[in-house]
Amino acid sequence: MISANSRPSANSTLTLHPDRLFPSDPTVRAIAQRLYQHIKDLPIVSPHGHTDPRWFGDNTNFDNATSLLLLPDHYVFRMLYSQGISLESLGIRRRDGVVVEQDYRKIFRIFASHYYLFRGTPSRIWLDSVFHDVFGLTDTLSADTADHYYDSINAQLVKPEFAPRALLDRFNIEVIATTEGALNDLRHHAKLKGSGYEQRVITTFRPDDVVDADRADFAANIAKLGELTGEDTYSWPGYLAALRKRRAFFREHGATATDHGHPTAITADLPANEAAALFQRCLTGESSLAETELFRGQMLTEMAGMSLEDGMTMQIHPGAHRNHNAVIFERFGPDKGADIPSPTEFVSNLKPLLQKYGNEAGLNIILFTLDETTYARELAPLAGHYPALKLGPAWWFHDSPEGMLRFRHQVTETAGFYNTVGFNDDTRAFLSIPARHDVARRIDCRFLASLVAEHRLTEEEAMQVAYDLTYGLVKKAYQLA
Amino acid sequence: MISANSRPSANSTLTLHPDRLFPSDPTVRAIAQRLYQHIKDLPIVSPHGHTDPRWFGDNTNFDNATSLLLLPDHYVFRMLYSQGISLESLGIRRRDGVVVEQDYRKIFRIFASHYYLFRGTPSRIWLDSVFHDVFGLTDTLSADTADHYYDSINAQLVKPEFAPRALLDRFNIEVIATTEGALNDLRHHAKLKGSGYEQRVITTFRPDDVVDADRADFAANIAKLGELTGEDTYSWPGYLAALRKRRAFFREHGATATDHGHPTAITADLPANEAAALFQRCLTGESSLAETELFRGQMLTEMAGMSLEDGMTMQIHPGAHRNHNAVIFERFGPDKGADIPSPTEFVSNLKPLLQKYGNEAGLNIILFTLDETTYARELAPLAGHYPALKLGPAWWFHDSPEGMLRFRHQVTETAGFYNTVGFNDDTRAFLSIPARHDVARRIDCRFLASLVAEHRLTEEEAMQVAYDLTYGLVKKAYQLA
Amino acid sequence: MISANSRPSANSTLTLHPDRLFPSDPTVRAIAQRLYQHIKDLPIVSPHGHTDPRWFGDNTNFDNATSLLLLPDHYVFRMLYSQGISLESLGIRRRDGVVVEQDYRKIFRIFASHYYLFRGTPSRIWLDSVFHDVFGLTDTLSADTADHYYDSINAQLVKPEFAPRALLDRFNIEVIATTEGALNDLRHHAKLKGSGYEQRVITTFRPDDVVDADRADFAANIAKLGELTGEDTYSWPGYLAALRKRRAFFREHGATATDHGHPTAITADLPANEAAALFQRCLTGESSLAETELFRGQMLTEMAGMSLEDGMTMQIHPGAHRNHNAVIFERFGPDKGADIPSPTEFVSNLKPLLQKYGNEAGLNIILFTLDETTYARELAPLAGHYPALKLGPAWWFHDSPEGMLRFRHQVTETAGFYNTVGFNDDTRAFLSIPARHDVARRIDCRFLASLVAEHRLTEEEAMQVAYDLTYGLVKKAYQLA
Repeated sequence: MISANSRPSANSTLTLHPDRLFPSDPTVRAIAQRLYQHIKDLPIVSPHGHTDPRWFGDNTNFDNATSLLLLPDHYVFRMLYSQGISLESLGIRRRDGVVVEQDYRKIFRIFASHYYLFRGTPSRIWLDSVFHDVFGLTDTLSADTADHYYDSINAQLVKPEFAPRALLDRFNIEVIATTEGALNDLRHHAKLKGSGYEQRVITTFRPDDVVDADRADFAANIAKLGELTGEDTYSWPGYLAALRKRRAFFREHGATATDHGHPTAITADLPANEAAALFQRCLTGESSLAETELFRGQMLTEMAGMSLEDGMTMQIHPGAHRNHNAVIFERFGPDKGADIPSPTEFVSNLKPLLQKYGNEAGLNIILFTLDETTYARELAPLAGHYPALKLGPAWWFHDSPEGMLRFRHQVTETAGFYNTVGFNDDTRAFLSIPARHDVARRIDCRFLASLVAEHRLTEEEAMQVAYDLTYGLVKKAYQLA
Repeated sequence: MISANSRPSANSTLTLHPDRLFPSDPTVRAIAQRLYQHIKDLPIVSPHGHTDPRWFGDNTNFDNATSLLLLPDHYVFRMLYSQGISLESLGIRRRDGVVVEQDYRKIFRIFASHYYLFRGTPSRIWLDSVFHDVFGLTDTLSADTADHYYDSINAQLVKPEFAPRALLDRFNIEVIATTEGALNDLRHHAKLKGSGYEQRVITTFRPDDVVDADRADFAANIAKLGELTGEDTYSWPGYLAALRKRRAFFREHGATATDHGHPTAITADLPANEAAALFQRCLTGESSLAETELFRGQMLTEMAGMSLEDGMTMQIHPGAHRNHNAVIFERFGPDKGADIPSPTEFVSNLKPLLQKYGNEAGLNIILFTLDETTYARELAPLAGHYPALKLGPAWWFHDSPEGMLRFRHQVTETAGFYNTVGFNDDTRAFLSIPARHDVARRIDCRFLASLVAEHRLTEEEAMQVAYDLTYGLVKKAYQLA
Repeated sequence: MISANSRPSANSTLTLHPDRLFPSDPTVRAIAQRLYQHIKDLPIVSPHGHTDPRWFGDNTNFDNATSLLLLPDHYVFRMLYSQGISLESLGIRRRDGVVVEQDYRKIFRIFASHYYLFRGTPSRIWLDSVFHDVFGLTDTLSADTADHYYDSINAQLVKPEFAPRALLDRFNIEVIATTEGALNDLRHHAKLKGSGYEQRVITTFRPDDVVDADRADFAANIAKLGELTGEDTYSWPGYLAALRKRRAFFREHGATATDHGHPTAITADLPANEAAALFQRCLTGESSLAETELFRGQMLTEMAGMSLEDGMTMQIHPGAHRNHNAVIFERFGPDKGADIPSPTEFVSNLKPLLQKYGNEAGLNIILFTLDETTYARELAPLAGHYPALKLGPAWWFHDSPEGMLRFRHQVTETAGFYNTVGFNDDTRAFLSIPARHDVARRIDCRFLASLVAEHRLTEEEAMQVAYDLTYGLVKKAYQLA
């Protein structure tokens, strides 16, 4: 009997192979290498993500390996939790104030001794890249190397070159967009004025808190929206005027885009008096689930109209069943790895918005999905027809080598390359951003190389497309001059 | 910074590599080459398509490059439109008579200068093949070569060898089926009698216009059906009798098959009195959407029954959300690239028809889908059981290298090869027919070659299957002796 | 014209290539070979299947090739039936007693002369392996070799080394689980006590017959459940107590797991008094389809609770539309190849059960699906979060090379390897079990080899994972010490 051992031998070497993620076929690999050489050093443009603007505003060094790398990364602790490791033992703060593990070294050891669970996952690729390229570590993470990792990372984090703005430079990040709610005062972005980074760290307008009447704080948010803008947000016209003002305020802090995270892709185009009445129903808190859904749908169409006015690119991120695990939500709050994708329908749901605005060539609406069945069936045909639509990259659970390949394989033949918008990292794991963009660049080059090897594209064309997928399309779609 | 350039260098050479669409792995490629040599010169059998019978009936030469290659091809202008190029500027006729671009050379230049948009799409493969193989062009299409293309193509189109019937010969097309509505007088097919082409250009009976009560012209069509047949088409028995007469009339013009383009795969099997009452409701124009849907479903079952009587092969093409873009439909009419696939369910929807006729080994029902999720989940299991069912090839948006590969990968293990029916080009782009069949042949050989390389099939068997997929199965399924 | 011939030449040689199912790329193939060498001789653990316990209890030799290899294998006769071969001519017994073909040699000849239909299917791989490895046959099956096959197989079947228990030893089957209904007396398992095989042939508790109130025999089954257990099964508490007793009885006969074959993944968590009232409605036989569906859903949650008490692993197999072909069901009964997969939803449907028990790290719930669209969208995200959930392997129509590859490609990045449970053969075709496990081992090695070749995993890690996928995870998930 062969003996089982899920843990790697002590001191196995950590290397990042220069050809990683390229296929082994020598013809395709050689083409992929040439394409990758052509675009690998292009600046990073990160138009959609969740890094904390405080980092860049204050430029204070990060604290320690555990609170930087593990605690904000729900990809990491959801996997550990799935194998029976409690979130308390990982130091995830409880809402009820019950004390959780505080010993960051101990938490890091738990993570290290379960690192084999990440085999075959994108987290493994991103983390290995961070360990190797950012911190210069050369042994694979395991129980045996946990302390060495923890000490080495912490020792480096205090250095000036690990301050957030220094890392922006080191990572060659030309622009990074954070995401803030409609009521945010953007104080951290304000601090950047005059720093030389104000064009590089920009915000994104995400109004879910003031359009989603299912939220417990919806009424309070509408009240606050009124205070911030001086508009009567209890009237439909005042509410819309207030949103226009907040959009303008965000644009003053660099925003070129809005973002909308909705449970479904439902849109609506009600007559103004019906929309006004629906808004009033939602304000009472007595609206049905169907009414709040309809209201969110109406607001997507309103927002598209405002984008046509003010030129902001509009991102729609539908299809997450948020906080599926009520026990976890009650105990730890949102964003704890318990959001689960749902089947998502676009063709009927987007129709009202598209009837009104889909033919506007001046409008940029970027669609994302967690339901890959819609790539070839719905999204590519829609984006391959409507001038207002473009397709965002493989998102969230699909931001992975296989996920990106499925996206290109299923989207390209109907939508082409030029109805897509380049890569989004969509992350709060700041240090992983170069690795995430590098995975996207490698996979795009790999896909293009297979087209060249099969004589479906010339290598010269593939070079141009690789450049556009890496740099040209994202700057255009997000209007980053 | 690398400079972006989405346009190829001037005068880049257009070549069609002999190994195009084969994978670069030398083992698989060599097998694919041998299989392809075995079947590449087989005659083209095109049992389902939308070429204009007038071309073959009149045998008049085509007019110019733009009206032949661009104006009828919604794959081409939907992509251009998606990038903000107006349909008016592409010369697409408006319903309201507003004048659109008339300068065909100018339109061809717009197309040429945006040809890079088609990178990675099947249109690119088909068009390059037409340019190179049909017209002998040797530079890639671009703004620089637009005029040369336009002049060269037009100069050739007037020659006798470019007359439609001559092209049928040149393309080695053994049989081609057009598609006509139930009320069509088939005059163009009639002209072929005695020409030697009457067995080669045949029609297909498509009765959507007289079974779809959602159409504005439904009542008028029923009246016309009565006139044509001398039946009382306002009574249920008379209506059915009239349909039988029209089927016979189509068979006299070569038809061996019917075709049914329905929004869903719903079928019904109502008692005769209920079916008759439902028909009466539909005639009034006051029927609900659910009633017209049910009526279409009932008529699929009626048509299956008539196929059992008269032996016609029955094709079902469900799942297109037609004319999704109301603005475009109002301004330009149908078939303008704004049909979008929808999720399609077969297992429950087909059950009434299958309960009645699914066990008839003498019946040929061919299913198509725009929803690839049904390949492995629903269609292959259904076709791998019911004697009456076969699977049509990858359709429409999926008539592409990746689409065909997904079809074979997802269907073969459960349905085998012998419950499929070979390739359909389904096109109105006549000149692209050889290229479309060639893509299918190459992809089938590629798929078979991978099975051989992985020792899942012997090369001898693969040769036989390649022959059947190219020639044997289509002739059997469509009863083309 | 090339002549068609769907039948292989006489006497083409049957070989099983040592590299079958590995890709031809030399880099990947070499790694796959090394991984496969590492795990190919591990014992077979078969935790879920449908072999007949009588075989092992009585240990009587099998009768003949046709009744052993064809009659129980609905994969085989569904394909033959789909091509117009009647089930009567294949010797499938009719419910109405009408005499069907009795000449087993004649039936075998029909099968042999249509063996080409199985090209590209997993049945072909399994059957060729049985022919070659179990019976030593060296020519491909065809009309020409039918009699030789039939005689040779029959001559071997009578030998002592072909007795069922001898085959368990020859096949290196460490454990095999059969599946029995809740009312089964497990007499064949009882006969194994003292034979040395009682730990190797175990049962599985499948209570569908006493929880599915849509069954015609539901009321009778509840009565019998009462008789067997001495509980008042017409009361809700008595019914639950009776189920607990039957679970204990099954555990005495080796069961470590339960299995639940439901039309959908619906679960419910009703208050006890509502559950009791629903049970009473179901007992009357007047319950609606929605009520019986809800009751099955409630019972899944009840069963999960009992699993938490008694430690049995719980398997959920949803999504088959059983007996889709009413004609076949009426004439021949269930399991005749007419079960068709349906779209299946997990995220909302499983929520009630998961709310109650999903966070229990001590619970083992294994999910299967026939709807591959749920792999990446629903199942991997659920299993990558909930401690109680693991994913069963590619199932039924997807138990195939392509199906297994899709499973690994779509599941691994989000759920990892360690939220999966190894292979299930799920078969009643006993002789094919080694071939089925061999296919899974080859495909897993192939998948892992591609990760190694692309530098996403080290070869040392891949060796460990290959071991776990073949042997470690199944023993853990099914608690087979």
